[in-house]
Amino acid sequence: MAIKEGLRPGGRSARVQESIHRAVRELLEEQERSTLTVPLIATRAGVTPSTIYRRWGDLATLLADVALAHMRPDSEPANTGNLRGDLLAWAEQYLDEMSSEPGRNMMRDVQCSATPGYCATILSGQLRIILDRYRSSSAPLPDVDRLLNLVVAPTVFRILFAAAPLKVEELHELVDIALLPAPEPHSRTN
Amino acid sequence: MAIKEGLRPGGRSARVQESIHRAVRELLEEQERSTLTVPLIATRAGVTPSTIYRRWGDLATLLADVALAHMRPDSEPANTGNLRGDLLAWAEQYLDEMSSEPGRNMMRDVQCSATPGYCATILSGQLRIILDRYRSSSAPLPDVDRLLNLVVAPTVFRILFAAAPLKVEELHELVDIALLPAPEPHSRTN
Repeated sequence: MAIKEGLRPGGRSARVQESIHRAVRELLEEQERSTLTVPLIATRAGVTPSTIYRRWGDLATLLADVALAHMRPDSEPANTGNLRGDLLAWAEQYLDEMSSEPGRNMMRDVQCSATPGYCATILSGQLRIILDRYRSSSAPLPDVDRLLNLVVAPTVFRILFAAAPLKVEELHELVDIALLPAPEPHSRTN
Repeated sequence: MAIKEGLRPGGRSARVQESIHRAVRELLEEQERSTLTVPLIATRAGVTPSTIYRRWGDLATLLADVALAHMRPDSEPANTGNLRGDLLAWAEQYLDEMSSEPGRNMMRDVQCSATPGYCATILSGQLRIILDRYRSSSAPLPDVDRLLNLVVAPTVFRILFAAAPLKVEELHELVDIALLPAPEPHSRTN
């Protein structure tokens, strides 16, 4: 509950934000999300409700902000020594995180934020780190959008809209498809 | 506001449901979604609010139900005479519908329904109709899950989580990828 000094630079405003974010994360672990209220969060964070309303407007926006902050990775994607291995490791971890109840809630919250597009930006950044490790390789690299479309999108879609999330084998197959050379446009008429 | 007789079979209960659904659709066209309330919908539909609460529990569930009902297609996917053409026509229409403000809201509402998995079921049904037209063809057909993962998922993901929806050329490329034979597992190590 006490604000941990020196955790982030940026002075009082940043510390207040961090204490409110932490209060939300703690409360989400302790109780049902539907029972969260702004006054409850304020009490836990040691601020007044008006501090929260002034900054975020409402609870949905605060939850979206916390969800987006949580998506920022703590560390670089694992380096396994080859592109396919790095992508598989990253994609498996992403599937695992997003399939959890907090993961699903996070994705729903992010959509309510003012900048849901920031989600793709964060994911692109992580994928770019992986690709940059292999720029000197002779094999053609997929671009980031291809990885978002073929690996991230099915992971997210299946969690949000289908009866069951992707199986790991399906995820591996999608990574393999993403690593194939792009097809010639209109090469098939079937 | 009057209930159109003979629109659907099923007696009084089905007519009441239809009148409430229609009231929601009309109100969504006339005013901001955030201003919708159960009493407002009840008045428009000519029922009491308790009729709505008894059946749906709350506004979010009613909106989700209307969104799911709207996803049920009115007609079969267009038959262009070849698989690629049918898939392109279907996928372009889906992208077009879902990129609209009502489409985006619909996807968000569906996630709040008790059965978001029903969404993939409806889409699968439409894709299966297309595939069934070409069962006698000698070319290998993609399965429905492959089309969901490679064509539908990127369409939805980009609308909900990225700065811009798919471009039509990207959509065409995804259909081409979905029509490629499945890659050999682990054929690349890069």
